[in-house]
Amino acid sequence: MDEQQPARRPGGRAARVGAAVHQAVTDLLSERGYGKFTVGDVAARAGVADSSIYRRWGSLEILLSDVVLTRLNARSPMPDTGSLAGDLRTYAANVAREITGPDGLALLRLAVALSSNGQQGLQALDDLLADRARQLQSMLDRAIERGEQALDALDVLDHVMAPMYIRVLFGIGPLTPEYVDNLVDRLL
Amino acid sequence: MDEQQPARRPGGRAARVGAAVHQAVTDLLSERGYGKFTVGDVAARAGVADSSIYRRWGSLEILLSDVVLTRLNARSPMPDTGSLAGDLRTYAANVAREITGPDGLALLRLAVALSSNGQQGLQALDDLLADRARQLQSMLDRAIERGEQALDALDVLDHVMAPMYIRVLFGIGPLTPEYVDNLVDRLL
Repeated sequence: MDEQQPARRPGGRAARVGAAVHQAVTDLLSERGYGKFTVGDVAARAGVADSSIYRRWGSLEILLSDVVLTRLNARSPMPDTGSLAGDLRTYAANVAREITGPDGLALLRLAVALSSNGQQGLQALDDLLADRARQLQSMLDRAIERGEQALDALDVLDHVMAPMYIRVLFGIGPLTPEYVDNLVDRLL
Repeated sequence: MDEQQPARRPGGRAARVGAAVHQAVTDLLSERGYGKFTVGDVAARAGVADSSIYRRWGSLEILLSDVVLTRLNARSPMPDTGSLAGDLRTYAANVAREITGPDGLALLRLAVALSSNGQQGLQALDDLLADRARQLQSMLDRAIERGEQALDALDVLDHVMAPMYIRVLFGIGPLTPEYVDNLVDRLL
């Protein structure tokens, strides 16, 4: 590590560079798709040097994982409405909004491309999945404590998230509020 | 079209070239992944000229769609066991075997990458999905004619195929026969 920069201050140059680089990745993903751009393309779009990106992220794959983690995590806080049905409906609606938004498909495809099953597998995506599963299980555990139905996070993955993900990935129909609510109702 | 080849005979040179090119694509997908190889790489691996590939398929994306269509279609004939539960269990087991096989993940990722939602969208993948949905609906319609439960092909997509696809794409657990049967049982 031959770091020669001054110490980073939150909200300072490092934060501005981070935001510009994330935006450049999101734009390039939407315009060209995964595998069709380089660190040099990201740097040029963000107005920074290639070396700044390599120094901070190490590789294009690590940068891409960071973008997926940030975008898909930040937008779906776990709801706490007081009932299992309310929590699951709100959570499902949040996921639906996130993956049908302007960058949703690109982020979902990127998550698939980066998942550690492949030859470019990265621990970061596994961590994302594990982290989300824990948050979801906490929400489900609160319902059990209230004496409501006991569900496992994998049941929610299989019967609420997976159908929405696959429909978005393959472009099958819109995710209407009725459709999303119906997925939750079938599970309960 | 300035086709200058002699007419193709089934089982002749054209068939051998087709098989060699499909195998080269499958190998390159497993080794490098989508977006990491060119028509030139496929041609070199298959021992044919680039121009042979362009003349027959037109582009790398059309060739890739042809491979997905051939591989994922040919391996899952629709069962006809005499009962809805038997048909669905057999169908689900076939899909599970196909997508957990040596090239399954690569083909599933390729289907996601090529689906017409993206900037490189191709009609061929839409046709594949529509064709599979029709075959599945025919199987479900036979059950209705026998007086069994009425199901829609999209119910099967949402609650049997989507969970298996997402678990393979994100590397979550093995698809055990018990897990696959349980997906069918929950739907029925």
